[in-house]
Amino acid sequence: MPSRYKLTIEYDGTGLAGWQRQDNAPSVQQYIEEAIVKFSGQKVNLFCAGRTDAGVHAKGQVAHCDLVKPFAPRTVQNAINYYLKPHAIAITDIMVVDEDFHARFSALRRHYCYRIICRDAPLVLEANRAWHIKKTLDIAAMQEAANYLVGYHDFTSFRAVACQAKSPLKTLEELTISRHGETITIEVSAPSFLHHMVRNLVGTLVWVGEGKWQPERVKTALAAKDRSAAGITAPAGGLYFMRVDYP
Amino acid sequence: MPSRYKLTIEYDGTGLAGWQRQDNAPSVQQYIEEAIVKFSGQKVNLFCAGRTDAGVHAKGQVAHCDLVKPFAPRTVQNAINYYLKPHAIAITDIMVVDEDFHARFSALRRHYCYRIICRDAPLVLEANRAWHIKKTLDIAAMQEAANYLVGYHDFTSFRAVACQAKSPLKTLEELTISRHGETITIEVSAPSFLHHMVRNLVGTLVWVGEGKWQPERVKTALAAKDRSAAGITAPAGGLYFMRVDYP
Repeated sequence: MPSRYKLTIEYDGTGLAGWQRQDNAPSVQQYIEEAIVKFSGQKVNLFCAGRTDAGVHAKGQVAHCDLVKPFAPRTVQNAINYYLKPHAIAITDIMVVDEDFHARFSALRRHYCYRIICRDAPLVLEANRAWHIKKTLDIAAMQEAANYLVGYHDFTSFRAVACQAKSPLKTLEELTISRHGETITIEVSAPSFLHHMVRNLVGTLVWVGEGKWQPERVKTALAAKDRSAAGITAPAGGLYFMRVDYP
Repeated sequence: MPSRYKLTIEYDGTGLAGWQRQDNAPSVQQYIEEAIVKFSGQKVNLFCAGRTDAGVHAKGQVAHCDLVKPFAPRTVQNAINYYLKPHAIAITDIMVVDEDFHARFSALRRHYCYRIICRDAPLVLEANRAWHIKKTLDIAAMQEAANYLVGYHDFTSFRAVACQAKSPLKTLEELTISRHGETITIEVSAPSFLHHMVRNLVGTLVWVGEGKWQPERVKTALAAKDRSAAGITAPAGGLYFMRVDYP
């Protein structure tokens, strides 16, 4: 009887092709699966709560896998972390879960955070860790626009053309914008998201913050149900997958 | 009549030999001086508020230099930043100052910040940006110990053996410890510091936080006026030179 382990994972997405295994580019999934083989001799399939794109970071991605031999959770964590070096990926928490736990299908809610730094100088300590915008943004206008997006809507306008979800209907539970010094933080929560949805929401809100768009225009863009009616896709480096809620 | 420019500088100290020019290692001073030569054709000497060691970061280092040809400050900033790429150094602010301004000698107060992350997993997003400690620290005990250090004292016990300052007497104005999640932040302010002083203070306070030392022992260590009576030198990567006060 194999044991199922739930892993909480942090990674710096810079230079990685994203979560999912690729034939010819390094992925988070590949590096962790390889680390598991190295310590356990076992080939596993990792299932994650949400596949992140190339360059996107995680503070609290969640994944699960089954191991046939029983190991103490802390042993598994330390062994994976040992073999993950020098990659910028770490297992920050681990627990044994019931066999009906599924990182993706059991998830109740995903939380993302997007960081923007508004200043003239190039980013140094935050290079690849935030979207660098050279002007100040009007966050009151951004929040006004964001309020049109919260709720149960057809998010076709904010969905990547390549998105494979069956339905564009999603419930956006939180979209909160705050400023601390030169840093703007956008917190986004929903049971689930469409492909590129957070980055498309942020790219559109930035147009509002820059004054290119009035907040009401975001309502119109949502109603259009047309990707070309909304704003740009914000850069990957500003996005962090923060945590996942489970029952 | 040359103009004097005051530069505010951010850098990621990882992989750099520190502020000061070295014969055979890359320094912040060298890269900025080279960038100035490239745009102005002029060889300058940069003077900084406080020389940082290899691996130490800065959010608000200050330096000054004189340029013979008059340039608008914003032009100087953009040109230096252009030529600094791809190094992890940026001029975040610039202003023209009086000829009697001196980045080092006019400074009234320096502010440093030291970051510690307490968790089992290796650091990923904060690798080289914080001191990784695998156990929880008792910050109440650390603050109690810190309170013995605030004030005007002979800091010989917390001074690098190589320190060239004439006097070990310094006034420590602030030494405040706070926790936010797994991150402990130590804020330190004084008119000036001895060599390695902040890192030696932090290394000693961590012994208190780990329970190796009772808080009172820090008072004894200070009174000993002997480097070997105090704790270890905390790693460079956790230290940030935050800002400098001028009249």
